[in-house]
Amino acid sequence: MIYMDNAATTWPKPPAVCQAVTECMEKYGANPGRSGHKMAVQAGQILLYAREMLCELFHLSDPFRIIFTYNCTDSLNLAIKGMVTPGDHVITTSMEHNAVARPLKKLEKQGLELTFVQCSPEGVLDPEDIRTAIRPNTRLIVTAHASNVTGAILPIEEIGNIARDHGIPYLVDAAQTAGILPIDLSALPVDLMAFPGHKGLLGPQGTGGLYIHPDIELDTVREGGTGSQSESLDQPDLMPDKYESGTLNTPGIAGLAAGVKYILDQSPSKLLAREQRLEKLFLEALSHISGIKTYQPSGKGKTGIVSVNVGEKDSSEVSNLLDERYDIATRGGLHCCPLAHETIGTLNQGTVRFSFGIFNTLEEVKQCVRALYEISRSG
Amino acid sequence: MIYMDNAATTWPKPPAVCQAVTECMEKYGANPGRSGHKMAVQAGQILLYAREMLCELFHLSDPFRIIFTYNCTDSLNLAIKGMVTPGDHVITTSMEHNAVARPLKKLEKQGLELTFVQCSPEGVLDPEDIRTAIRPNTRLIVTAHASNVTGAILPIEEIGNIARDHGIPYLVDAAQTAGILPIDLSALPVDLMAFPGHKGLLGPQGTGGLYIHPDIELDTVREGGTGSQSESLDQPDLMPDKYESGTLNTPGIAGLAAGVKYILDQSPSKLLAREQRLEKLFLEALSHISGIKTYQPSGKGKTGIVSVNVGEKDSSEVSNLLDERYDIATRGGLHCCPLAHETIGTLNQGTVRFSFGIFNTLEEVKQCVRALYEISRSG
Repeated sequence: MIYMDNAATTWPKPPAVCQAVTECMEKYGANPGRSGHKMAVQAGQILLYAREMLCELFHLSDPFRIIFTYNCTDSLNLAIKGMVTPGDHVITTSMEHNAVARPLKKLEKQGLELTFVQCSPEGVLDPEDIRTAIRPNTRLIVTAHASNVTGAILPIEEIGNIARDHGIPYLVDAAQTAGILPIDLSALPVDLMAFPGHKGLLGPQGTGGLYIHPDIELDTVREGGTGSQSESLDQPDLMPDKYESGTLNTPGIAGLAAGVKYILDQSPSKLLAREQRLEKLFLEALSHISGIKTYQPSGKGKTGIVSVNVGEKDSSEVSNLLDERYDIATRGGLHCCPLAHETIGTLNQGTVRFSFGIFNTLEEVKQCVRALYEISRSG
Repeated sequence: MIYMDNAATTWPKPPAVCQAVTECMEKYGANPGRSGHKMAVQAGQILLYAREMLCELFHLSDPFRIIFTYNCTDSLNLAIKGMVTPGDHVITTSMEHNAVARPLKKLEKQGLELTFVQCSPEGVLDPEDIRTAIRPNTRLIVTAHASNVTGAILPIEEIGNIARDHGIPYLVDAAQTAGILPIDLSALPVDLMAFPGHKGLLGPQGTGGLYIHPDIELDTVREGGTGSQSESLDQPDLMPDKYESGTLNTPGIAGLAAGVKYILDQSPSKLLAREQRLEKLFLEALSHISGIKTYQPSGKGKTGIVSVNVGEKDSSEVSNLLDERYDIATRGGLHCCPLAHETIGTLNQGTVRFSFGIFNTLEEVKQCVRALYEISRSG
């Protein structure tokens, strides 16, 4: 099996990730932050360690500004719904995943004002279009860091500077970039950043997080037991407890810590360079095959995602052929992202998405090219 | 280590649970319900299998009436916030966990009307008090199935019948009973039931679920990508996708399925009888030690929880002593449940909670008794 679906979930994981999950479950599988006994304390320590690893990766100094969630979608729902109320205005883009678009569209029905800034057919955003969209009641700007369809990187620094100019909080959806692109939150003008644990950070599914800038006032969306201020029926105002009600996915977070540690040990920039090299070879080879179309952003670089179509063939059918005949795992269709497909003109056909991971090899890339060549030549 | 903190998280898990998590991560760690390739399909199949196992346990026929969440708190927040809006009235009890009380108290500040029906000092609820509290705008009744402080079982069938009499939806918090007490949802008058995966169901942390009766209209609290109806910016109305946005904790759910299968294979009633036998012996032994107080409900039976105090000693200090000197893991303090502690009169002292699991032994119970005896005799 050649796994080219890393934008959905990275696989395989470094062996240390699964080991960390197992070790947590078997050796200290108690409830962190609740009881005071040794196993519960050890479970609490792994949460802190995971926050510290993430701080190192994202250049943060306070581990308690990172909170753990179920997944990136959970983080985005919290960041959006904790920030805005009906009557507020939110600016986002025409490249957003449904994890951003659907909560916003729902709030729009309840009276939120919403602007989707249009990106170019290459999926490129002009940050000045964000500035133009600002209204007196703009309360939040939300954009992806990179598209999950084309890999196009959005100019988050420029967008963030515009947001800061106007005193508007800026939320970045780092679903496709956390652990993949360098992200320096000590320098970037970003107020909230949602990220999944199971993609570029190499952790298990069931993990995600949200960075919350100290100046941001964010309401909760989930209240409950936190193991702190137990005498109170009000949600504690402590970080990170305020946003972490209920039992966390401790084994998953232990695995996430191991995933982040792996990235730090290998050097993030080396991993990125390797992925980009493979991707470049893939694109170069595909450019020689007639009938193959790729969707390349003309902008600021991209992540290891290549969206492809073969003539007019349905993308899901091509993806199925790749799986059945060639044992190559890709994702066809719309990738939970109709806005981006509309932007790049593939709402009907979808695309076959090849998304590279750090464990893909040159030989695998060659097999993908060969398979696409054969499919392009078949009826 | 003697682990007596199973009401927080059960530990250890049956070996098959950890094996299932590992197998999922290593062999089919793709994203379920997104792509169509073999590994993604297999990941989707384990979700269905887990729903089927839960249906068998809870006597349900439609696996898609069970949705997966992050934890029981997540389920309760969805069930509460998806049902009520400001101006509605909700009835709950004075034995509820903060996972119920805190979301409700927050909504109260936004205009929800809220009644806490008072239980007796033994933690027993008279269901007729629920009936008396009903108003024309009562939109939801929420109660625990059993207290996490005393183990007292609430009369959910009687409460549910009263709810049905008045056409009011009834939400049960099964945090302390799912996998422990028999629950027949085909017969019980229950409309929503929230449950954790990592307690009585023996699954990993980071798993939970919600049963939703077919007649219940429940709004979403988390929207996003579902892998279905990807062309739409509106949340799909399909079950279970409607409530399962973002990538689920597939390895955790694989482990949960293994946990439920273990319970079904062992016979739930045998497991319960064993736990109750140990608990009875524990209580019997403690009754002979002067200075030890236990908090026993006088009502409808109880789960394997024994809350204890030693004279006037602070419960957290006793819990720490048990951990440090005797390697016995319990939980002192208020257990995220100030309402119940107020009800039974322990808001200041808290209690030392011994919560039994299916792997505890008679020898462990004896050691707990010996430790409590020694502590009761020390200064």
